[in-house]
Amino acid sequence: MYEHEDVRAEMKDEIEDLVARKRYAQLRDLLLPMEAADIALLLEELGEAVMPLVFRLLPKELAAEVFVELESDEQELLIRSFSNTELKEVLDELYLDDTVDIVEEMPANVVKRILKHSDPEMRKSINEILKYPEDSAGSIMTTEFVDLKRDMTVEDAFKRIRRTGPDKETINICYVIDVGRHLIGLVTIRTLLLAEEDAVLEDIMEKNIVSVSTLDDQEYVARSLSKYDFLALPVVDTENRLVGIVTVDDAMDVLQDEVTEDIEKMAAILPTDKPYLKTGIFETFKARIPWLLLLMVSATFTGHIISKFENALAAFTILTAYIPMLMDTGGNAGSQASVTVIRGISLNEIEFSDLLRVIWKEMRVAVYCGVALSAANFIKLMLVDRLLFHNPAVTVAVALVVCLTLVLDVFCAKLVGCTLPLLAKKVGFDPAVMASPFITTIVDAISLLIYFQFAALILHI
Amino acid sequence: MYEHEDVRAEMKDEIEDLVARKRYAQLRDLLLPMEAADIALLLEELGEAVMPLVFRLLPKELAAEVFVELESDEQELLIRSFSNTELKEVLDELYLDDTVDIVEEMPANVVKRILKHSDPEMRKSINEILKYPEDSAGSIMTTEFVDLKRDMTVEDAFKRIRRTGPDKETINICYVIDVGRHLIGLVTIRTLLLAEEDAVLEDIMEKNIVSVSTLDDQEYVARSLSKYDFLALPVVDTENRLVGIVTVDDAMDVLQDEVTEDIEKMAAILPTDKPYLKTGIFETFKARIPWLLLLMVSATFTGHIISKFENALAAFTILTAYIPMLMDTGGNAGSQASVTVIRGISLNEIEFSDLLRVIWKEMRVAVYCGVALSAANFIKLMLVDRLLFHNPAVTVAVALVVCLTLVLDVFCAKLVGCTLPLLAKKVGFDPAVMASPFITTIVDAISLLIYFQFAALILHI
Repeated sequence: MYEHEDVRAEMKDEIEDLVARKRYAQLRDLLLPMEAADIALLLEELGEAVMPLVFRLLPKELAAEVFVELESDEQELLIRSFSNTELKEVLDELYLDDTVDIVEEMPANVVKRILKHSDPEMRKSINEILKYPEDSAGSIMTTEFVDLKRDMTVEDAFKRIRRTGPDKETINICYVIDVGRHLIGLVTIRTLLLAEEDAVLEDIMEKNIVSVSTLDDQEYVARSLSKYDFLALPVVDTENRLVGIVTVDDAMDVLQDEVTEDIEKMAAILPTDKPYLKTGIFETFKARIPWLLLLMVSATFTGHIISKFENALAAFTILTAYIPMLMDTGGNAGSQASVTVIRGISLNEIEFSDLLRVIWKEMRVAVYCGVALSAANFIKLMLVDRLLFHNPAVTVAVALVVCLTLVLDVFCAKLVGCTLPLLAKKVGFDPAVMASPFITTIVDAISLLIYFQFAALILHI
Repeated sequence: MYEHEDVRAEMKDEIEDLVARKRYAQLRDLLLPMEAADIALLLEELGEAVMPLVFRLLPKELAAEVFVELESDEQELLIRSFSNTELKEVLDELYLDDTVDIVEEMPANVVKRILKHSDPEMRKSINEILKYPEDSAGSIMTTEFVDLKRDMTVEDAFKRIRRTGPDKETINICYVIDVGRHLIGLVTIRTLLLAEEDAVLEDIMEKNIVSVSTLDDQEYVARSLSKYDFLALPVVDTENRLVGIVTVDDAMDVLQDEVTEDIEKMAAILPTDKPYLKTGIFETFKARIPWLLLLMVSATFTGHIISKFENALAAFTILTAYIPMLMDTGGNAGSQASVTVIRGISLNEIEFSDLLRVIWKEMRVAVYCGVALSAANFIKLMLVDRLLFHNPAVTVAVALVVCLTLVLDVFCAKLVGCTLPLLAKKVGFDPAVMASPFITTIVDAISLLIYFQFAALILHI
């Protein structure tokens, strides 16, 4: 499976050696038994000079599979090196949805060349799919599915599958449509195989069908596929006409990309869709600086709170020493709650109507956590700071201020952490943004306000 | 698709009404057209009294499908309410891997009852799968696949598929084994359908097979399935004997669970495998408190740094006001780098051998970010704090200390953030733990050390 870097490095050396010695037949035999995805990984590690040469050694069908698996930079490089005939050969082997994916990533002049060398029907389909909004079901579907008629017998169906099957992305599920192309049923290949040859589709087809609309969000489509354990999901237009299908392999890719996007947002990064090592320095910078700036400016408000209490701090300098601990603990407690809720929302486990249940739960967890942390901290303050380090400034009163702050701090943090993602969802914002960095900034200010209130109350400053 | 809470609430009311009026036939007709996953969601919202009653209305096959989709609490409740005959009926309809999943979640006395009422062959298979370590390929595979022989013709193969197919989890891919049950090839149902009836499997089967071993990690198995776009992956023992398959729907569930686990770890939570609202308060507390405690104790070291520079701070109290901003910005910059690298590692985009490339990239990004933040901050300090708020303490020297700290702080944060996950991976720890909370705690200390060094240097304190 060539996952291990050293195995891949060895393969790479061997390929370069075979190229240098012009042992092309031997090189071809080396590649043939490999999976397309692995060959793609290897090609990407070869230099620009060698890569197209090795690619040309692959038989047509495998070459197309490998092409699909390459990153867009390498695809562009190859297309630019292709003759028109070569380009046409590769394009003829591609499934429609893969071609659309490629077209979406290429610069305009390459797109023009691709469209010019696709056959007219393919070109029409590409253009149609390109019209759907990004991230919609329409933009990730393929139109290459098997469609059957309700009055066909199982034997007719098999004939049609045998005739049209080779060009279809999947034959495991076939869709039954009426004369107006409305989706009226589906049959799996298993149902067909287990049925009598003269059975009529209308009698054996599944009529209760889950379908999605062309404009549904791709994440919703992928989650539905996963929820119902389907291998493909039909996509219909507003009049319930079948226009395409989304297959499980594409759904998996969508879910993976959406999760990466969520994780990036949770870490205050604007999502990019390139792998880390392929993203330019400036691109990475642009994805990271906006949130850093915004959060930096917000954090200065926390600074203003400290400024306001400068005199209190000057009188009890020991209080300053516990600021980082209080801020960090509040931030951590808050982000535990927010991240749990964000994930729950994206898995459809938590909805806005659960808000009160969530708050009630977090409140109780917060009390447990706050009291446990506070107790541990009190012991630490008394035993370590006061007795061990002989710090006379750490009085029982100071410890009390710190520990009471801790309890209330964790309580507020959990409350803010669990509420904001649900509110964001409600008003149509992305809940993922309400994760650690954002929550931390808010909770920091809350921590300090609580801290200084308790200090004023107990230490009379 | 009943995703929307209000639709589901309406359905729930309707069901409860029908139950109250004993309109069972009508209730059954209402449920029949629904997908199993949706019925399961509905059942979970009904009370303990009504749920078993509604479940019993479902036809055998659908009942089994719904049963699989339920949470383990509800499954246990149902099993306890089943008569022995009912239990046996449900068990007979289940696929092996689903039964194993259920057995794994049930208390011992329920497991005993399940095993007692499974047929002997099933019982043997369950016990065998239970022997595999948790999270291994063996533990998630099913042994219900179609196996064929190399000398069968396509016609023979179809006969065998028709005979054994109904009990198999998938017939879309069939596996060819020799007399010693060694895996020697595979044929997809598409290949079979498109081949001549008298073709021999040996000639048409795919011989280059990607397989996994029973002890391989389940995440590795799921990622391989996703990487190669397979619908199933064969699982072999140490002697390459075919013992089971993992299907794509199970792989999707594994990936989803692993991502949730990663996200929880990144937020300093010990992973739990129950949905949020089903987890008890004390369980949630136990999952959260260990890291909170550990990070709280670590954060007190940061406090000690401040204590050491108490006198400096007393002389320049204005310096305290910028501590939260410096700590937060460092933490954010660091977690951006760490989370990106952690995700890259789990997607196999980044390996330990990329360490130097990653560091070199992060260093340059860090300089850009640091300089940009620093410039913005300098302007803010001069215009807002000094001119607008007339704070005479904000001198150019103080601004210089803050801004220089910011640049070095961001630099160190990104460096620590990108290095630790890769080092963790190298020594066999989980990289996901090296995310925001952990990085923040380290970076806080670094920020303060840098801050006080620059303060000493420039402000001579």
